[in-house]
Amino acid sequence: MKNNFFSLLKKDIKTRARIGKIKTPNGEILTPTFVPVGSQATVKSLTPQDLREIGVQVFFANTYHLYLRPGVEVIEKLGGLHKFMNWDRPLMTDSGGFQVFSLGRKNRSSTLSPCANSLVKIDYNGVTFYSHLDGSKHYFTPEKSIEIQQKLGADIMIAFDECAPYPTTYNYAKTAMERTHRWALRSLEAVVVGRRQKQFLFGVIQGSTFRDLRQESAKFISSLAFDGLAIGGVAVGESKKEMAQILDWIMPILQKEKEVCPIHLLGVGEIDDIFTAVERGIDTMDCVMPTRLARVGHILAKRKNFTYDINKSIFANDPSPIDKNCPCYVCHNFSKAYLHHLFRANELLAYRLASYHNLFFIEDLFVKIREAIRKDEFLSLKKQWLK
Amino acid sequence: MKNNFFSLLKKDIKTRARIGKIKTPNGEILTPTFVPVGSQATVKSLTPQDLREIGVQVFFANTYHLYLRPGVEVIEKLGGLHKFMNWDRPLMTDSGGFQVFSLGRKNRSSTLSPCANSLVKIDYNGVTFYSHLDGSKHYFTPEKSIEIQQKLGADIMIAFDECAPYPTTYNYAKTAMERTHRWALRSLEAVVVGRRQKQFLFGVIQGSTFRDLRQESAKFISSLAFDGLAIGGVAVGESKKEMAQILDWIMPILQKEKEVCPIHLLGVGEIDDIFTAVERGIDTMDCVMPTRLARVGHILAKRKNFTYDINKSIFANDPSPIDKNCPCYVCHNFSKAYLHHLFRANELLAYRLASYHNLFFIEDLFVKIREAIRKDEFLSLKKQWLK
Repeated sequence: MKNNFFSLLKKDIKTRARIGKIKTPNGEILTPTFVPVGSQATVKSLTPQDLREIGVQVFFANTYHLYLRPGVEVIEKLGGLHKFMNWDRPLMTDSGGFQVFSLGRKNRSSTLSPCANSLVKIDYNGVTFYSHLDGSKHYFTPEKSIEIQQKLGADIMIAFDECAPYPTTYNYAKTAMERTHRWALRSLEAVVVGRRQKQFLFGVIQGSTFRDLRQESAKFISSLAFDGLAIGGVAVGESKKEMAQILDWIMPILQKEKEVCPIHLLGVGEIDDIFTAVERGIDTMDCVMPTRLARVGHILAKRKNFTYDINKSIFANDPSPIDKNCPCYVCHNFSKAYLHHLFRANELLAYRLASYHNLFFIEDLFVKIREAIRKDEFLSLKKQWLK
Repeated sequence: MKNNFFSLLKKDIKTRARIGKIKTPNGEILTPTFVPVGSQATVKSLTPQDLREIGVQVFFANTYHLYLRPGVEVIEKLGGLHKFMNWDRPLMTDSGGFQVFSLGRKNRSSTLSPCANSLVKIDYNGVTFYSHLDGSKHYFTPEKSIEIQQKLGADIMIAFDECAPYPTTYNYAKTAMERTHRWALRSLEAVVVGRRQKQFLFGVIQGSTFRDLRQESAKFISSLAFDGLAIGGVAVGESKKEMAQILDWIMPILQKEKEVCPIHLLGVGEIDDIFTAVERGIDTMDCVMPTRLARVGHILAKRKNFTYDINKSIFANDPSPIDKNCPCYVCHNFSKAYLHHLFRANELLAYRLASYHNLFFIEDLFVKIREAIRKDEFLSLKKQWLK
């Protein structure tokens, strides 16, 4: 089953997990896969060459950050984001919505409505917010978000949505969802066809932790002419159980209503969450987790909690690689003792080596996951990892 | 002309500049060359793989820093510094003397004697100092310095010396020089032969800015059984003219007394200084300059002052490489606008890319210098660069 954008290559016999292929003008993406986040047009400390070595297939950049700095006109003038950062593989941008709400919402205790005690003002047409960099005032609409993403030249764009805070009231979640739906329609209409190469657009499902809202949103968004679907409003504070439940509610709807269509999970990437998501049919997911952990010395490895702190004194003399099962450049060339030293000495190389390994670890896990789905062994792989 | 350690391959006909080859158990070094400094067993932000790509032939690590952190026992237990940091080419360590005096001398206004208002206490046998990391008390002697450097496994070690502050009195400069000479003899005796592979030892010439002291030191140190010579106490505050003068005083003596012997200049690496030094016969020189400049966004290029600030707004939209004449990875793949953005956004990749380029720039200059000496065109190359 396929269309020009996405093909389904294999379905797991026991779960909703599946192997697919997304085809963009800048190359193909074998799914399921991880999408590392390079908020400011760089995955922290790594070059595009590193990312290719690591096996990264698609790069996720933040519209909000790039709009504020260096500015979309700068990037457009330089030939688009691919050229600006020298990334020649597929590129995904978000709508800017998540950052507008999360970075604008100064008083985190006020979660019932993002507008209370907040710098963010939402109206029917869009959102007024103030730059976290210099306090300057800005206004985003669905049209503006699409315009920016088109100028950036993303292969995959995401429709402007409102991500309600967690926890929130049923009424506020409904209001935010309905706004997201209206904005979804406007985002679709805003796409200027033929402006550049084909840019694909994903619609976002919201609805917080409320079953009927999530299902309504799933049905509505999948009824529209989006190239792909994205699930928003998860990993915003709800429990892992709630996240799994949200996916259980909506993934059957999405896979039924829009069978040959990639489904992206926004902002999720912890190891157990990866299994939860892939099992339920998620094709791609982005997260800052691997690189954020790396910068504080938390190394990913196949062990309890999937991470350990290389700063601990017990590693000062340890000649073994930071992950003995990992074939990456870092594990092949350096010891725990050296990484420990680099972190203790606050050396820049520390963040780079740890980021490289952590990202490789996640990409490598997805290689294993795809292999397992291919062999109908996904559940046994999951059991082996989450025992 | 050659011995087992050093061969002279070519002498410039008009100057003292020369091409040579240093042979160590970890490979050969074609001279003149630059020795980048990796104080804490890493050239800031770069991997050994990067250094090899850049063409770095020999790595300079600081004994003082590594002794304090991670500690010489840690590095020894892990198989030595080469293995610890995964560097398989020649490695040079300093004696620790320079840092002991410079980091221990808290009150910089008291320069006449390093002991006044200072944490450093010098006695006949050695130096008591306090760690800049945790205030712990330590004692270095010539024997201790050699022991540490042997344990680190450096291919080239440097004898423990006292680097007098600048400016200083004639009397203090003389005292420091005489101590350096006594310690030179003790350093030579301290070398435990056959402990590991052959480790070569360089003696240090001191004498501040006083002609008779410098010449006395040059004669004395070159009369001893050192494998190489190092010139210390320069680039400590004296003018560029004074530095050139010091070299004019002593290089003829060194080249005469110890003709087939590499001569290292400690802590010097600005572009004009490189020409000054090579012209007078210097074979190797270490400096933190290229990477230190890089970290604040100062890019090396063949232009006025050999550097410019990539942070400046004029580069925000500039699609050209940071140095249009440079064939390095960074200049081949990224624009000024991208580097400017990375620095403005405080992205870790900024420091890495700028360090890579700056170091490449210096190594590439030395390739040009060796080529020019080979063709007896050193002076015209110098003129072309310093016009």
